[in-house]
Amino acid sequence: MSRDGEARSLETEAAAAAEAARELREAAAALVARHASDEDALRRRAAALDADLRRLQGSLAVLDPPTVDKVEEDLERARVAVTDSDVASFLPSKKNGKFLRKFLGPVNVRVARKEDRLKIKDEYNNYRDRAAYLFLLFPSTLLLLRWWIWDGCLPALAVQIYQAWLLFLYTSFALRENVLIVNGSDIRPWWIYHHYLAMLMALVSLTWEIKGQPDCSSKQKGVQLFLRWAIMQGIAMHLQNRYQRQRLRTRIALGKAKRMDVVAGETAGVEGQLLLLYPVLFVLQGFEAYVGVLLLQTALHGLASDWQARISQTVVVCGILLVVMAVGNFVNTVETLVLKLRFKAKMKRAKGKQDRPHQN
Amino acid sequence: MSRDGEARSLETEAAAAAEAARELREAAAALVARHASDEDALRRRAAALDADLRRLQGSLAVLDPPTVDKVEEDLERARVAVTDSDVASFLPSKKNGKFLRKFLGPVNVRVARKEDRLKIKDEYNNYRDRAAYLFLLFPSTLLLLRWWIWDGCLPALAVQIYQAWLLFLYTSFALRENVLIVNGSDIRPWWIYHHYLAMLMALVSLTWEIKGQPDCSSKQKGVQLFLRWAIMQGIAMHLQNRYQRQRLRTRIALGKAKRMDVVAGETAGVEGQLLLLYPVLFVLQGFEAYVGVLLLQTALHGLASDWQARISQTVVVCGILLVVMAVGNFVNTVETLVLKLRFKAKMKRAKGKQDRPHQN
Repeated sequence: MSRDGEARSLETEAAAAAEAARELREAAAALVARHASDEDALRRRAAALDADLRRLQGSLAVLDPPTVDKVEEDLERARVAVTDSDVASFLPSKKNGKFLRKFLGPVNVRVARKEDRLKIKDEYNNYRDRAAYLFLLFPSTLLLLRWWIWDGCLPALAVQIYQAWLLFLYTSFALRENVLIVNGSDIRPWWIYHHYLAMLMALVSLTWEIKGQPDCSSKQKGVQLFLRWAIMQGIAMHLQNRYQRQRLRTRIALGKAKRMDVVAGETAGVEGQLLLLYPVLFVLQGFEAYVGVLLLQTALHGLASDWQARISQTVVVCGILLVVMAVGNFVNTVETLVLKLRFKAKMKRAKGKQDRPHQN
Repeated sequence: MSRDGEARSLETEAAAAAEAARELREAAAALVARHASDEDALRRRAAALDADLRRLQGSLAVLDPPTVDKVEEDLERARVAVTDSDVASFLPSKKNGKFLRKFLGPVNVRVARKEDRLKIKDEYNNYRDRAAYLFLLFPSTLLLLRWWIWDGCLPALAVQIYQAWLLFLYTSFALRENVLIVNGSDIRPWWIYHHYLAMLMALVSLTWEIKGQPDCSSKQKGVQLFLRWAIMQGIAMHLQNRYQRQRLRTRIALGKAKRMDVVAGETAGVEGQLLLLYPVLFVLQGFEAYVGVLLLQTALHGLASDWQARISQTVVVCGILLVVMAVGNFVNTVETLVLKLRFKAKMKRAKGKQDRPHQN
């Protein structure tokens, strides 16, 4: 082609592209509008059904036991069809919580497709797993190096990097769990508050003055206690993660779970697990409170000796936070356990009834 | 209705609800699948057009000037039709950056509808505005109270709350800007790196030991410098925000802007603004570098006197970070200014040509 011809062809092509762009813009606008109205219609149907289900659930009281069971089964079937399918994304959505709004603004983190929701949940579980390894490894390494290389005296920088990592970790947990909640997960609010408190503790611990020689080991008592507690916490996280996955797998297999539940480990299901996980959790919580009290003692002792009052203040804050978290964790673990036992008893009753006809 | 009739009606209703739920589940699955395939088709069209536009843009070199202008105008029109409409949400999306993935996981923060994208952008601007007030107020209040009530000696807690707030603020800026980038904003990468560095500085400054009496004012020299710099920064943020809004409004009025540009203040447009904003920005950057150098000096001086080496280390890190940020800001401001002047010259040329026919 001649240079002139090439120029003309480019001109034509550019004009055609501009026209194509105009058409595409209109097609996109039409598509978006049509999809929005389709989705509105479905949303209305979903909301109406949801209201129906609630109303029916509320009027169960008037029925006698055998009818209740049949109606409840229907309602349960309907609920699963709604919550564990694409319908879920058309139910009235929870707004971003305050925490998410503060950090992210009003951006929509709700995921439309069910598979994508499961992917987020899965990624969260994997993240928890990886974090649990680091949670175990990081403080262990610090304590090991302290004994092996650092001659009984932790360097401030290493401890502070660890504390900064904790701050990041808890922030990301809190953000991710808030995203899961927006996507329909029914995680207990306490576990998120717990992460807020843990963020605060990591922040406060960053302002600790890590004192060095002489007499390092007595000055660093608080830090060491904290690290030991973190190691125990790491072990418990591992147990929790294992049980959660197992429980979730079992429940999905049984078709009973909304897969979006983030089950803090405290709700691991199977009988045998109750025997190991719950005792470990209770021991951990006891130890958490104990560390908190020890920190308070160290701080008070520090006040009396040559420590500065200010440093003791931050240790006091960390001590109080640990005690509050331990108590909150304990209360919530017990509540979950009670719910679980009640659920189990109910299942047993239901199973007993189901079995009866076969015995005839 | 008799109690028995009521029970029967409840049974029927529950069965109907279960059936309705089943139907709804299928309708939702069909809708989601149909929408996905519609969107895929549109996505392919958008990608093809996008490739076309790039190819045409690349072959402009062979054309003579008047044809270039015409072709460029067509291409620009096409580009605006694509980027400033619903089509934009169908273009291949940028993945969440590493920062967003770390904090939030793989959740989709891309907004489908154009209005919603504009809402995010708007909210980000409002957030910047509010932050700018606090940015001015917080350090001013600290310095005022120091002089008025605290007798020349800042209490550690107040300073640390301020530093923690800075850490939160920069984290939320970085998160929000990453969300904007995923949504097609073309903010310069440096301004986000700048926020990462600022996060690091806030984190490091939290580990400063804020020393008290005696001889407070000389021990707190670093902190005071930092606060004064923050006040100047607050003033500059206000100027930037004002200019950005004005520029954005002008450009939207002219139909030229993708409204998703986050224009860091450094790209404020109008002539008169160049005369005030840029000098202020350059002075601020000079002052930032100066504070950095002073911090380094204070730290070195501290090393020689009775300060602990560790505390000086953190001050050194903050000093280095400030100098790096100042240099980076300066380079990027100059680059933006050069681009702006070039753009202006080009506009002038284009306007000159447009005006000629009218003169006939």
